[in-house]
Amino acid sequence: MRTQVAIVGAGPAGLTLGRLLEQAGIDAIIIERKSPDYVLSRIRAGVLEQSSVDLLRKIGVGARMDAEGIPHDGVELSFDGDMQRIDFHDLLGRRVMVYGQTEVTRDLIEARAASGAITIYDAEDVHLHDFDGQKPRVTYSKDGQVHEIECDFIAGCDGYHGVSRASVPQNAIKTFERVYPFGWLGVMIDQPPVAEELIYAHHHRGFALCSMRSHTRSRYYVQVAQTEKVEDWSDDRFWDELRARLNPEIAESLKTGASIEKSIAPLRSFVAEPLRFGSLFLTGDAAHIVPPTGAKGLNMAMHDVTVLAAGLREFYGEKSPAGIDNYSDRVLANTWRTERFSWWMTQLLHTFPESGEFGRRIQRADFDYLCASRIAQQSLAENYTGFRSQPS
Amino acid sequence: MRTQVAIVGAGPAGLTLGRLLEQAGIDAIIIERKSPDYVLSRIRAGVLEQSSVDLLRKIGVGARMDAEGIPHDGVELSFDGDMQRIDFHDLLGRRVMVYGQTEVTRDLIEARAASGAITIYDAEDVHLHDFDGQKPRVTYSKDGQVHEIECDFIAGCDGYHGVSRASVPQNAIKTFERVYPFGWLGVMIDQPPVAEELIYAHHHRGFALCSMRSHTRSRYYVQVAQTEKVEDWSDDRFWDELRARLNPEIAESLKTGASIEKSIAPLRSFVAEPLRFGSLFLTGDAAHIVPPTGAKGLNMAMHDVTVLAAGLREFYGEKSPAGIDNYSDRVLANTWRTERFSWWMTQLLHTFPESGEFGRRIQRADFDYLCASRIAQQSLAENYTGFRSQPS
Repeated sequence: MRTQVAIVGAGPAGLTLGRLLEQAGIDAIIIERKSPDYVLSRIRAGVLEQSSVDLLRKIGVGARMDAEGIPHDGVELSFDGDMQRIDFHDLLGRRVMVYGQTEVTRDLIEARAASGAITIYDAEDVHLHDFDGQKPRVTYSKDGQVHEIECDFIAGCDGYHGVSRASVPQNAIKTFERVYPFGWLGVMIDQPPVAEELIYAHHHRGFALCSMRSHTRSRYYVQVAQTEKVEDWSDDRFWDELRARLNPEIAESLKTGASIEKSIAPLRSFVAEPLRFGSLFLTGDAAHIVPPTGAKGLNMAMHDVTVLAAGLREFYGEKSPAGIDNYSDRVLANTWRTERFSWWMTQLLHTFPESGEFGRRIQRADFDYLCASRIAQQSLAENYTGFRSQPS
Repeated sequence: MRTQVAIVGAGPAGLTLGRLLEQAGIDAIIIERKSPDYVLSRIRAGVLEQSSVDLLRKIGVGARMDAEGIPHDGVELSFDGDMQRIDFHDLLGRRVMVYGQTEVTRDLIEARAASGAITIYDAEDVHLHDFDGQKPRVTYSKDGQVHEIECDFIAGCDGYHGVSRASVPQNAIKTFERVYPFGWLGVMIDQPPVAEELIYAHHHRGFALCSMRSHTRSRYYVQVAQTEKVEDWSDDRFWDELRARLNPEIAESLKTGASIEKSIAPLRSFVAEPLRFGSLFLTGDAAHIVPPTGAKGLNMAMHDVTVLAAGLREFYGEKSPAGIDNYSDRVLANTWRTERFSWWMTQLLHTFPESGEFGRRIQRADFDYLCASRIAQQSLAENYTGFRSQPS
């Protein structure tokens, strides 16, 4: 088989890139290690920046998001029960959209199926070849046979553990990483959310987040030590711990019940540099990981593939390599800006016993500064809703 | 002897408080362990917030500052040689005043001498008594005799190492501290400053600061390990290191020469809580220390004694204890806000090998965010020039 762009990974990054290339008349095949059902079973964040909302509409997969998604004008912060709302709309005229990543992925899968574009699921032993040479190609096994896709470019959209980044020689790539000494224990429940907006809570017992997927499905998290096991957390224990970390009035109105999903996710900051290796481009989680505080993972992936698609359009349309030559720098600028914000939100909201009592007071002072300063609120808002460079 | 307020310490905090009380018709005696010359030989920061400028004018010691001080509309930040100006005036309509703390102290000493108010210098063995009881008093030895000052209140303005905070029983006071693993090696020189405004430089070799006391006297600093000895730093070595940390064009125009002072100061963040113990109040460095990044030490002290003087005026004038009852809370709110900012500036601008390459990239991302965002610049500006609560 031959295609112009081989996309490795059928998560939201790969699927969005596929859609963008389709619209640009560029031929692409997606190769995915897992099944569609497996891809859809991965539970991820659910807050879309305006630019991601605009993108999904532009590529024709915004209808269900517009019908079922929930626009939010702000978020609530909580520090030991004291509450402060950050009103994006009042501060900057912006909002975000709550719509689960699973739903985004489903919409993209359906659109791709309808278009007839090729996605190869259950592809085993995926390997990338000669992306630094003249004959880039991707091989995989399926149904006992080895297949080969020749291509001009390979888009690595296969996540942190994927084969794409792992295929780059170690001496060609530099990585930056911080692993946080805790994880998020998350519970999904079919109950209305405790509040209309997300609540990000710092509490001396640890971080908590009240999030949602819809008006009837809620997603809650509590910070737990890395050593914790999900089996040790009964639903009751989870609800008790969550309530203890919230403002008492909020805690009282929490609608609990039997969880429909429960898992622990580690927190990591990770960046790879550069993001282009000959004809291979890394995007999304294959290129960088942010802790989920700030809900940036999906939005970064959307940004990356938008830049990559524009570069590939320029390459095939105007025969100019400028866009793909700039890909790494442009994406890394956005990556580090976003890493900084996600790190800052994480620092502000979690407990770090090793930073001592002085460190905790600095966190409180950060919260108090947010309460006292419209400028501080605007800074949070411009990052949370998606940073855009201002004319200087 | 008897007075209404015994002020321990004749640094800028004690002298400013003395002046404020004089103006309010409240009787005060200042007791100082050292001589005036010793007090004036202590070299400290030299950036006054607008509120400090206003205060010095209000208490009648602003004439020389207005004649010789240098108003600055902004500061320059530098990161590995890349420069970004933060224009306070354009961002917020504010400025700061460069006028050495030594000069402030000299003006205050002269004003106090002219007014005839009592300052006891070279007071040995200063002790605070019964500030938690009915007969607060301060004793000291001078010329071989023990003296006692009875008073209503004691103002502890005697710095971090002073007797005031040390007199509080350990179980009545809580302290928060962070000691940074480096110091500032500072050099004073009679040469025009390298730039019109201050330059705060992060460099992978370490922090550097180009500051000044006047148009003809410059003050430069480089971050050094805690283990460094000033004897190991010849002037030439200092200038070479400073130049290596600056933008090359700036470095080239640096006017060097023989230093007139050279010393290493440790960096510390420190807060004591509460700040009132019966009739004893802690102010300035006796209450809190900030690292010098951000030039907040003197400005915090000015804030503290302004609040204390207002409380004492209320107490003596309106017979209301409300002001002195609120002293601790009001000052601590300002303290933690300022500690946060000074900590943030310190974090941004110094090298912290233990935070690794990821940490350094986050510092760079912080700098890049400042370059790209007017909101981020406004946040720095509102803190650097002196935070004022906004109506919410």
